[in-house]
Amino acid sequence: MDLRIDKIFNPKSVAIVGASERQETVGYAVLNNLLTMGYEGQIYPVNPKRAQIFGCQAYPSVSAIKAEIDLVVIATPAHTVPNLIEECGNLGIQSVIIISSGFAEIGEDGLKLQNQIEQARQKYNMRIIGPNCLGVINPGIKLNASFAGKMPYSGKVGFISQSGALCTSILDWAIMHHIGFSNFVSIGSTMDIEFADLIDYFSEDHKTESIILYVESIKKPEEFIKAVRKFTKNKPIFAIKSGRFEEGSKAAASHTGALAGSDDVYAAALERAGIVRVHKVEDLINVAQSLSMQEIPKGNRLCILTNAGGPGVIAVDALIERGGALANLSEETNTALNEVLPPFWSHNNPVDVLGDAQADRYEKAVDICFKDENNDALMIIFTPQAMSEPVPTARSISRLAKKYKKPIFTSWMGADYVAEGVRLLLSNGVPSYPTPEPAIDAFTLMHGYQELNRQLKLGENQTNEINNLKPDLKPYKQLIQQIKAEGKRNFLNEVETKALLEEYKIPTTKTQLATSPEHAAQIAETIGFPVVLKIQSPQILHKTDAGGVILSLKTPQQVKEAYAKIVQNAHEYDSKATIEGVTVQKMINSSGGTELIIGLKKDPVWGAAIVFGSGGVNVELLQDKAICLLPLNKAFARQTIEKTKVYKLLQGYRGQVGADLDYLENILVNFAQLVSDFDEIEEIDINPLVMKGSEGIALDARVII
Amino acid sequence: MDLRIDKIFNPKSVAIVGASERQETVGYAVLNNLLTMGYEGQIYPVNPKRAQIFGCQAYPSVSAIKAEIDLVVIATPAHTVPNLIEECGNLGIQSVIIISSGFAEIGEDGLKLQNQIEQARQKYNMRIIGPNCLGVINPGIKLNASFAGKMPYSGKVGFISQSGALCTSILDWAIMHHIGFSNFVSIGSTMDIEFADLIDYFSEDHKTESIILYVESIKKPEEFIKAVRKFTKNKPIFAIKSGRFEEGSKAAASHTGALAGSDDVYAAALERAGIVRVHKVEDLINVAQSLSMQEIPKGNRLCILTNAGGPGVIAVDALIERGGALANLSEETNTALNEVLPPFWSHNNPVDVLGDAQADRYEKAVDICFKDENNDALMIIFTPQAMSEPVPTARSISRLAKKYKKPIFTSWMGADYVAEGVRLLLSNGVPSYPTPEPAIDAFTLMHGYQELNRQLKLGENQTNEINNLKPDLKPYKQLIQQIKAEGKRNFLNEVETKALLEEYKIPTTKTQLATSPEHAAQIAETIGFPVVLKIQSPQILHKTDAGGVILSLKTPQQVKEAYAKIVQNAHEYDSKATIEGVTVQKMINSSGGTELIIGLKKDPVWGAAIVFGSGGVNVELLQDKAICLLPLNKAFARQTIEKTKVYKLLQGYRGQVGADLDYLENILVNFAQLVSDFDEIEEIDINPLVMKGSEGIALDARVII
Repeated sequence: MDLRIDKIFNPKSVAIVGASERQETVGYAVLNNLLTMGYEGQIYPVNPKRAQIFGCQAYPSVSAIKAEIDLVVIATPAHTVPNLIEECGNLGIQSVIIISSGFAEIGEDGLKLQNQIEQARQKYNMRIIGPNCLGVINPGIKLNASFAGKMPYSGKVGFISQSGALCTSILDWAIMHHIGFSNFVSIGSTMDIEFADLIDYFSEDHKTESIILYVESIKKPEEFIKAVRKFTKNKPIFAIKSGRFEEGSKAAASHTGALAGSDDVYAAALERAGIVRVHKVEDLINVAQSLSMQEIPKGNRLCILTNAGGPGVIAVDALIERGGALANLSEETNTALNEVLPPFWSHNNPVDVLGDAQADRYEKAVDICFKDENNDALMIIFTPQAMSEPVPTARSISRLAKKYKKPIFTSWMGADYVAEGVRLLLSNGVPSYPTPEPAIDAFTLMHGYQELNRQLKLGENQTNEINNLKPDLKPYKQLIQQIKAEGKRNFLNEVETKALLEEYKIPTTKTQLATSPEHAAQIAETIGFPVVLKIQSPQILHKTDAGGVILSLKTPQQVKEAYAKIVQNAHEYDSKATIEGVTVQKMINSSGGTELIIGLKKDPVWGAAIVFGSGGVNVELLQDKAICLLPLNKAFARQTIEKTKVYKLLQGYRGQVGADLDYLENILVNFAQLVSDFDEIEEIDINPLVMKGSEGIALDARVII
Repeated sequence: MDLRIDKIFNPKSVAIVGASERQETVGYAVLNNLLTMGYEGQIYPVNPKRAQIFGCQAYPSVSAIKAEIDLVVIATPAHTVPNLIEECGNLGIQSVIIISSGFAEIGEDGLKLQNQIEQARQKYNMRIIGPNCLGVINPGIKLNASFAGKMPYSGKVGFISQSGALCTSILDWAIMHHIGFSNFVSIGSTMDIEFADLIDYFSEDHKTESIILYVESIKKPEEFIKAVRKFTKNKPIFAIKSGRFEEGSKAAASHTGALAGSDDVYAAALERAGIVRVHKVEDLINVAQSLSMQEIPKGNRLCILTNAGGPGVIAVDALIERGGALANLSEETNTALNEVLPPFWSHNNPVDVLGDAQADRYEKAVDICFKDENNDALMIIFTPQAMSEPVPTARSISRLAKKYKKPIFTSWMGADYVAEGVRLLLSNGVPSYPTPEPAIDAFTLMHGYQELNRQLKLGENQTNEINNLKPDLKPYKQLIQQIKAEGKRNFLNEVETKALLEEYKIPTTKTQLATSPEHAAQIAETIGFPVVLKIQSPQILHKTDAGGVILSLKTPQQVKEAYAKIVQNAHEYDSKATIEGVTVQKMINSSGGTELIIGLKKDPVWGAAIVFGSGGVNVELLQDKAICLLPLNKAFARQTIEKTKVYKLLQGYRGQVGADLDYLENILVNFAQLVSDFDEIEEIDINPLVMKGSEGIALDARVII
């Protein structure tokens, strides 16, 4: 554990530089929060203009304090900060929060100040949160070293926000929803301490059982994935990542580029790290409530209890839609429920305890359902009806929730009428939501983490076989270097691309370059008809657009005519294009096979992303794809395949024989090997790769360098 | 307007049968609600055991009242109700609410009582809400003729719920969210007054500007669609329909059956009626709030104003995801904003007024954005920050919302901290949500209604051309009758099916029946190679499963061998099957064409549903389909086509020539004509219909009768 970070969250003493009695200042807000919310450590206000602030002794400088200081919080103007950091470092203080703004985010001048701070920080081996942040809150010791004026409940959820603006709102909601935080951090513009550092720290602080994140961007992707995955191996992280529809900065040169937008790659990265991503602020709050009160369900089987049919059906709709399962009631449960419920009860899950159910009937039924091993969690719905008892029912449920360890979720439907019941539930650690859907969301999100973690472990526990590949990289490295040096094209031509793929045991249609119509006809006769002819020119990447592809040529005469036609088309398409010749390859009948795309896209943040999905004409129509980061072994390859719709076809369909998935996994693993071997390559499209039974063949491919 | 229904909502006098002082009774609750919530009409408690209730004179019977009674509310046990209805009818009272339960829903005995009530109702020409309902509330006259103990705000939203259990919750939420209702109705088990009757009434009550529905099932589908569409031509209806994942009662015999589950057809029906369907209770409440306070936006262009970047991006994500558009700021708006905002403002939409914005800056910026004609609505985001002013900002926004007619939505993010500001906004008719997403939901749902209505009008305003079809129905009607009489099969064979399609100018591959291998070879030589052979047997519907289809036969010898093989396969598949022969048809090369499915499914509630979508192997893989009810003209056909993903392919794709959509529309219209002509037909699959340029041809088809 980094003790310098620990001192930020658990300081025995805090100096606040810029402490003030003027209410409009941040220094006032921070000092006031430290003084009034129950923090029991030493507090040292630093303000050269005052001898006392709120009756506390004030110090002209940090150096003047002459006592051990664990944490310094700085809330003075940007230009004062570099000297302050130097002063703190000099005093041996290694833990600092810089709340002040006016650094890199405002441009050149601010950046200069920030660089000075960074130099001092490195010199003294310090850790800094901020600048331009709200600060941190550790409710366990009533420490509010921030200018957000609320103290949330103490609990087991860690929260890290990249948006300062959201922090006050989230604190407000958290208190309303009884969400207990282990630590609450606004990280600001992160000159030093990043998500990764905090998540590493939370892994070891013995009180953080889950983390929720508000992410705008990740600066250190590798550290992020490492820290996150270390945490998520045992405990969940949920994150919202905004900016889903931001447009890419440049148009993609390949299908793969179009399929793997930057947000898609973000999604793949978060997933690989074990994070469950949510898309609404509300979802983050909702799942945080359940995380703070309940354990992660062991499975997806939910038993729903309700006093009204309609909301029960609504809950089932939501459950099925989100991939949960309606638990079967065991024989014993059925029998036991028959004894405590009126004869008209639903005799099924959802268990309808009927509209006239009072607290005692709920209690008996819930008790029985808790014991049923056929479910992994309970969801209790309460609708206000003539005879129903919101508060006593809440009390019964709370009692049972403590007795059993099984996760429970509730929806006390309504507002004022059920408010007291809801308060009772929340204060007893029973999550409660005004409508059934968010309760189902919380349950399925928590189970979603469990399931994701299970899948990741399958992949991580598999050794990375290299499939006995011994590719000869050298000629291709030289080729790429040469093409780059010549500067005429930024891609490998089809012959080169296919040779490279073959080197990695990815089968292709053998392609030969013909330099005259007669030559083409001769090649065709050797490889057998029908054949396909394609233009080869360093200026022409998209051959079809240039009229540079002719299919199904069946005779030498057709081949010769096609050659001439292609050359003519290419001239018309780009009169300056150098025509190197026309390639000849066997025409493969893909009917009965499944067209796939396998591709590579280099993402500016996350690096190599492998794309797999429906290929051919379906690529853009279906957008049926899955994205996977490296490393990629057979287990991850299989998971990637299974995420697509085309997986259904690959399994064999309506009597058609399925594809050899083991073989396809190997192709993906080999492809990933190629990608890791060639950092020079920017994008690859293999489209289509046709899978037919136990064989696959790449009919077309391009490599962008 | 049905004045009998009007008397239920606007009675000058109400008798309440079963009125009581005993708090646990429904009669107490209803009477108490009538007496204490401000209703100014006459109230007559009826209770034979009491002379006075709460100081009011009580009457032994309705007959004893001896005054004009507009509405009778009945809350006595089921067995007393038939006589009461008879008594009311006899007195000339035509408007009744039956709150009591214990009728059809409990079985035989209850049904008998209900039938007696129905006889009396018809005899006296009465209108009845219920039984087994909560009653009705008309906040405009403070009438609460229900046992739900709350009075919502008066307003312009009508609410009809089929679930009584949800009513109290919804009232509770409605009050919290300041949703103003024109009328609030719990319809119970609807022995007489149904959704359709109420929607018809709301069309004419001059105060209902929108309706929200909670639907579990529709009893009178035709009346429902008629009443709803009359309303939605001018004003929106939003509905939640639960039971989305209920399993169909019987397995589907056709692809079409599998594609058009009962919920899919419900969705198509609601859409055709002009209803926007929502899937969460929360969505219904959220949109109701905006409906009750704002006009429907004229378009989908939203201008977002925020004091923090993060929530602005979140709002944009939600907007784009839900099909809204980010408005461009006009030149003048940009210039004007430059004058009132600090230089660092975003210079774009979302308009970031920056974290230190106080009420005055918000007011100036919002004023400018309201004037911009490039947007159709505003969304204002407020996050609590150090200097921000939740209440004064709410006051400024409220003022501007009144000045301009343009719709406005807000998110005051937080709970306690912003509560007072939110109250101020709501009480000034400005919708406000705790997070940005539900505000975006409300905006996009309201615009969604506008867009749906526009599309429906396009369809409705088009005359139904019959495409000069003069089909000869008679032979097919006779054929179907004959097949049914024989009872050997429940489908038309391929030859019959294709003949029927041709009758409706839907081109098919001509198919002839061969009764021997030699006969098949002879037919093949006449129509030309390659050909396809398929088994014909009254016992075999799924020919492929039986090994009964062989493709691509190129010589007479191959045809003869295939004939023998098919007959052998069929015998092995079903040794008892009668083999009538093997059909021969031309093999059509569908490559380069687009495979479609066109089908019919008879839904038990909504009748004929036409399915259109991706065909061939893609049918179940993609589930890419659109469902359309009758009547179907070219405009509706086009809209149906445009809803599918395959539409992208049909438009022409990557240089491939597109399909003739006009031609395809005609095929759909003709198909619909066939469907209306043959009530005897249960299901039809045309799969695939291959579209290539300006031609389409049905390669395979089946008709289930």
